[in-house]
Amino acid sequence: MIIVNTGNGKGKTTAAIGQVVRALGHNFKVCIIQLFKSDIFYGEQGILKNLDGLDFFSFAKEHPYFNHGISLDTVLKQCLEALDKIREILKGNKKYDLIVLEEFNIALRDQFIDINIFLKLLKELSYNSKIIVTGRGAPQQLIEIADLVTEMKEIKHPYNIGSKSQKGIEY
Amino acid sequence: MIIVNTGNGKGKTTAAIGQVVRALGHNFKVCIIQLFKSDIFYGEQGILKNLDGLDFFSFAKEHPYFNHGISLDTVLKQCLEALDKIREILKGNKKYDLIVLEEFNIALRDQFIDINIFLKLLKELSYNSKIIVTGRGAPQQLIEIADLVTEMKEIKHPYNIGSKSQKGIEY
Repeated sequence: MIIVNTGNGKGKTTAAIGQVVRALGHNFKVCIIQLFKSDIFYGEQGILKNLDGLDFFSFAKEHPYFNHGISLDTVLKQCLEALDKIREILKGNKKYDLIVLEEFNIALRDQFIDINIFLKLLKELSYNSKIIVTGRGAPQQLIEIADLVTEMKEIKHPYNIGSKSQKGIEY
Repeated sequence: MIIVNTGNGKGKTTAAIGQVVRALGHNFKVCIIQLFKSDIFYGEQGILKNLDGLDFFSFAKEHPYFNHGISLDTVLKQCLEALDKIREILKGNKKYDLIVLEEFNIALRDQFIDINIFLKLLKELSYNSKIIVTGRGAPQQLIEIADLVTEMKEIKHPYNIGSKSQKGIEY
């Protein structure tokens, strides 16, 4: 089963985290492969790393949009390492009930990951695991093969926090 | 700050759970007041109850739509107890950084909770806490006073799980 959380609103990542907590509560084995998020920034990471049954991998911790100093080649290489992690899971003995591919939509949109290579790996992964792919701008080809797609749509957003993200809410 | 997660799609509750985990990761004090969910059904409850800094209250565990045997008067009384819990928090010394009012939109829609009484309490709560209200069909009056509103919109849903919810995904 392939699930996609996309859209311009809040809740794509937090809904995936909620699914992880829900799945762990049933003693499922869960894996998160995360792109474009620094390790120490996000509140959830401190909690998640202490939960039994969860393997957490993080690649390409910075996106060039936010850090102009990072080269596209570096990010490309790091995203390929994330794909290698998926291949390692496919070949390995450890089976996950749920795998979250966090912000992979962004890597697809920005062509750090090739959509055809990704879709092939995704289909293979989905034989043994439920998969959640998050990030705004999910490509149409992904939506087509997905089983469940939710758009988190911004209806109202406060102007006063537009430029400054809030601890405990946005990170 | 008042946040509303609404819409017909997945992710309203799980995004709130994700926010709770994120906030707890920053050592924030968090409270969940939940309506219409049984205690033992949902996977997340087993994890959440073990996390430091979280107070969890559950009222009106069954909705008459799913259990025709339960009287409307009983549900009404239980929802009023949930409002009393909010009043208790307002009067108490313990301040929460984040309060999740889970499925309160449903109680408002079905008139188990009076919208005017609720909005008054909500405004008071929001002086000291960030509030997340979840549930489909958020009333317009709530959307108007909210700071941030996200619609979880179903783009695609698998027909084959339409009638049977999946463990670790839907509960």
